[in-house]
Amino acid sequence: MADQIEELNAKIRELEEALEAEKKRKGPIREKIEAMSSEVVDSNPYSRLMALKRMGIVDNYEDIRSYTVVIVGVGGVGSVTAEMLTRCGIGKLLLFDYDKVELANMNRLQGGDNITTTYYRSCVRLFFRPDQSGMSKVEAAVNTLRDINPDVEFEAYNYNITLLENFKHFLCRISHGGKNEKPVDLVLSCVDNFEARMAINTACNELNQPWIESGVSENAVSGHIQFVVPGKTACFACAPPLVVASNIDEKTLKKEGVCAASLPTTMGIVAGFLVQNTLKYLLKFGSVSYYLGYNAMQDFFPSMTLKPNPACEEMICHQRQREYQESEDAKQKNEEKPESSDGVEIVHEDNDWGITLVCENTKGEDEDEEPSQELVAGVQLAYSKKKPTRKQISQEISSEGQISADDELSVEDLMKKLKSI
Amino acid sequence: MADQIEELNAKIRELEEALEAEKKRKGPIREKIEAMSSEVVDSNPYSRLMALKRMGIVDNYEDIRSYTVVIVGVGGVGSVTAEMLTRCGIGKLLLFDYDKVELANMNRLQGGDNITTTYYRSCVRLFFRPDQSGMSKVEAAVNTLRDINPDVEFEAYNYNITLLENFKHFLCRISHGGKNEKPVDLVLSCVDNFEARMAINTACNELNQPWIESGVSENAVSGHIQFVVPGKTACFACAPPLVVASNIDEKTLKKEGVCAASLPTTMGIVAGFLVQNTLKYLLKFGSVSYYLGYNAMQDFFPSMTLKPNPACEEMICHQRQREYQESEDAKQKNEEKPESSDGVEIVHEDNDWGITLVCENTKGEDEDEEPSQELVAGVQLAYSKKKPTRKQISQEISSEGQISADDELSVEDLMKKLKSI
Repeated sequence: MADQIEELNAKIRELEEALEAEKKRKGPIREKIEAMSSEVVDSNPYSRLMALKRMGIVDNYEDIRSYTVVIVGVGGVGSVTAEMLTRCGIGKLLLFDYDKVELANMNRLQGGDNITTTYYRSCVRLFFRPDQSGMSKVEAAVNTLRDINPDVEFEAYNYNITLLENFKHFLCRISHGGKNEKPVDLVLSCVDNFEARMAINTACNELNQPWIESGVSENAVSGHIQFVVPGKTACFACAPPLVVASNIDEKTLKKEGVCAASLPTTMGIVAGFLVQNTLKYLLKFGSVSYYLGYNAMQDFFPSMTLKPNPACEEMICHQRQREYQESEDAKQKNEEKPESSDGVEIVHEDNDWGITLVCENTKGEDEDEEPSQELVAGVQLAYSKKKPTRKQISQEISSEGQISADDELSVEDLMKKLKSI
Repeated sequence: MADQIEELNAKIRELEEALEAEKKRKGPIREKIEAMSSEVVDSNPYSRLMALKRMGIVDNYEDIRSYTVVIVGVGGVGSVTAEMLTRCGIGKLLLFDYDKVELANMNRLQGGDNITTTYYRSCVRLFFRPDQSGMSKVEAAVNTLRDINPDVEFEAYNYNITLLENFKHFLCRISHGGKNEKPVDLVLSCVDNFEARMAINTACNELNQPWIESGVSENAVSGHIQFVVPGKTACFACAPPLVVASNIDEKTLKKEGVCAASLPTTMGIVAGFLVQNTLKYLLKFGSVSYYLGYNAMQDFFPSMTLKPNPACEEMICHQRQREYQESEDAKQKNEEKPESSDGVEIVHEDNDWGITLVCENTKGEDEDEEPSQELVAGVQLAYSKKKPTRKQISQEISSEGQISADDELSVEDLMKKLKSI
């Protein structure tokens, strides 16, 4: 009897040890770190990021800890985006998604908007685990991200932002979700449908909140990011979103029940562009791109700036355009009498949060009163207006600054384009 | 006494269940799949990749299963590269790296060539786990990759390819590591030093093996991929490798013991370009890039083709150049009498493996007998020749086809460039 008890106790010790070992496999890898250091030792996970400062790329990399970013959509692009920002040591992330992690045993049909298990299996990097089945995607994501970097703060919201009550809460989190209840610094759209993008656009117009839209085409070989600054650039309602040209018939793509293609390469590259632009904007280095496209077939990267549309259907966009124009006029007046208040930045009254903009080095932006109607070569509109109830709005899209050439563009075309600058 | 035994048994059952649950967290996610299907159900992890076929991008996506790719270096770029190819369902991967997974408790100094734990912590995505400490990186990588996709075959070699005995074995695996003991289809260089790149170059020249070199600059804000086809394009010894221009003083970067910067964004983008180019080459879609650079500061993407250097220091490169020229001449002769053997591709005698090339749509490539000495704007040489014992070799680098413009290039410069085409 005593022998038996001894034996059972030994068995228990053995099992406890095995359980402990098994748990270690995924426990948090490290403790929180109080302050970022540039010390070059293995125990410092930030030394290679802090090296950006020593190399003259970034003035103060530690600033990253003071910033808060919202990510809407934790699918193929969103999960990689969240992971990259977490590795970079961002201060705080707010995640929004209404989907669940599910195991692939239901033979559910994949629609255009459904983010299914197959999707997370083939495209979302080691992100969701079988034991997270049934959990919300945002909750599962936060679990994984915390293991990667326990220094990042997280908020996770498992709802559809396009529903009214949720939308109000979404507005509230953008306005107060930052450090010390301040507004967040940037909103990133990683959603896969028109309605969610319009909801983000409305929210950001209302709150005068800069945001970056992202997208991958349904044939998986092109994508883009678009930086929207209310009043300064076209909002999502000013102009239909742009996709890099492909020769695919759009009609065949929109069929119900047809599964869109996806490639981990294209999604990784678009997420990379999105987070790189975010780092440049927040940490003030390099030039922030307003529109950066990617066509994988030709390795073609169109770049441009889209001006706001004076006939935009969103009323709040008109207000932002007026405010921006007023602040630009005030700035110009200030520049005319450089002796007086030089160096003092004029921001319009509504800008409670002191958001300042990183401007592109484009010349002649203000003189150009009649923006051309043409898009950069190789780019076309992704959607036509859904309900053209108002009279057809003329799209005022201007391509500025950068010229990108691809194989389809003849030398003559380029010459003409150059002469017109 | 009996009660106590009952209690202990209950405890054991409880622990066994907990252990089982804990183990499930990381067990292989799915069984092997015999054939790729395009059926749109959750249980099919390939439906979104197979959709590339239905959408007209790829003729036959299943072909991916017949291909074998070598990856040398499983660091920041290499691990993401391996993960992407694994998710894409590549037939077989051969991994080479001599480093170990280590926990960050040794305060080891980071040198330029050391891949330290800090590195894997901040940059290598959920790839290595604490319980893999002490394992070789390649072994740990294969563990992780097999969980992601059990359909992929793996070979892992934990050695330094620059040592003679290892180099011979490396040659042998390139020649016989493919499916059915055939040569591999492509070699990818994801190493971080000159010597390893030169070893890969020598091996691929010797075996007439196409390969793609990749690199990220030490300030972490630029990178490139370069597709090398022996005899057709410049080999790594023909011309010093290129980096996208940055304003950093190279001398400060090369200091001993100074830790290079790294950004998960730049590494993800370069790995994305590398795998996208690999997919385009293997599955024959889009146009394969010979050189694609990335400058994160300006979002500038230089593209060009580098011709082989007739004065290259590698003797085997001269042989490959002669062979390529002969095969081109034979092709041209064939084209002159189109009635006879039209459609029959001429490959030179040494090409036992039937490797065919995807060519760029550049015009005037063959007529241009005097390649220009200038690089595309914004690109500069990364290294100067290490031992210039022979007389200074004139670099014969020509930039062709694509024209890329960035902010630093004036309109006049562009006009001049266009006229010279």
